[in-house]
Amino acid sequence: MTEVSHSKNVDELGTGKTEDIAEKNSLYAILDQALVCHAGVIMNGKSSVQPTAYGRDGDTLYFRSAVAAKEFLSAAAGHISICVTVLDSIVYGRSVLQFTMNYRIVEVSGQAREVIGGEAKRRGLRSILERIAPGSWEYARQPDDSELAPIAVLAVDLAEATVKIRTGGPRDAPADISRNSVWAGEVPILPPSWGEPVPAVDLSGPVRVPEHVSSRSY
Amino acid sequence: MTEVSHSKNVDELGTGKTEDIAEKNSLYAILDQALVCHAGVIMNGKSSVQPTAYGRDGDTLYFRSAVAAKEFLSAAAGHISICVTVLDSIVYGRSVLQFTMNYRIVEVSGQAREVIGGEAKRRGLRSILERIAPGSWEYARQPDDSELAPIAVLAVDLAEATVKIRTGGPRDAPADISRNSVWAGEVPILPPSWGEPVPAVDLSGPVRVPEHVSSRSY
Repeated sequence: MTEVSHSKNVDELGTGKTEDIAEKNSLYAILDQALVCHAGVIMNGKSSVQPTAYGRDGDTLYFRSAVAAKEFLSAAAGHISICVTVLDSIVYGRSVLQFTMNYRIVEVSGQAREVIGGEAKRRGLRSILERIAPGSWEYARQPDDSELAPIAVLAVDLAEATVKIRTGGPRDAPADISRNSVWAGEVPILPPSWGEPVPAVDLSGPVRVPEHVSSRSY
Repeated sequence: MTEVSHSKNVDELGTGKTEDIAEKNSLYAILDQALVCHAGVIMNGKSSVQPTAYGRDGDTLYFRSAVAAKEFLSAAAGHISICVTVLDSIVYGRSVLQFTMNYRIVEVSGQAREVIGGEAKRRGLRSILERIAPGSWEYARQPDDSELAPIAVLAVDLAEATVKIRTGGPRDAPADISRNSVWAGEVPILPPSWGEPVPAVDLSGPVRVPEHVSSRSY
């Protein structure tokens, strides 16, 4: 493994000087792997961070809110910071200060616009659903217009997205390395896998687990 | 599975009305399972969200920064929003709008104080290290005072932490349930597991993988 990008450690927060824009392939790969993003807006003068499902369609990131969440929608229209994080390994150093994690991160800083129109909203919702549950948009019942009305679909442009990737081992001091008394390296974090599907308690009758659920891979 | 707490869906961001304070055991269990938090502060008038490693010692959450990151430290001292998210399952509904995730979330809204003094800083750093790499504080080389100087250890009180938990299946409309034509339920997201340790490229000689690394469980 080699250093792909920069040296910012994920356990050192707030330095934020690295602005590598990786290839779009890296950007898409991260966004198409994670299940949740963390979105921050300013509400009541304070930063507020919440996890949310999201979807990607081309170079647009979608997520949903409630139309009634006016304060949030207004804040997100002004500015929203979105972070998608994939952890790849724990990096073990010879010195306790050299421990870190290998990660792939997408950071988006932008403005959220509310998607207007039934077809456009459906397209955004479909991208969110297909991220967390591939194959489900065609399988489950799609919404009518009255169901769409109370849902706000928000879109953020990925043009300004930043990708940060750390790979490789620890960066111990030469004295620690030459002492050669402590194991150092990486322990990979394997991607989560799926457990056995559990039917809903209100599911009655012989509805089989569909193929797109039973054969799901991460 | 039953509803433990509230009805806010993780894919509906910004409603944030639920303020269930769960038992401390739930709080601790979430914080002692996740590897990363997402922290948001206001910098240059905008919300900025970043992932970072963290540790817990009693009712204090610790994370680190660089002493030189003055703008971040100043912002975090004013207010910081921290979110720790564990995803437990994908919830499949009969309607595409009823898909959601089961999750356990800790949200902390507070002020970060900089930890002063070598012993107190070591205690905070130890809690961070032991979260991402249990057993490593005693095994690896501990820092001297000159190494500690450029590191800011930040502490946030957990007294104001909020726990949000969603469990159970989808909440489909009666008409969708009685139609009984679509599978609904949950697909568990199994916790990540660890891959085979990879030695650092600059590790020479017969340093064996220590027990606390080779026997690591999630």
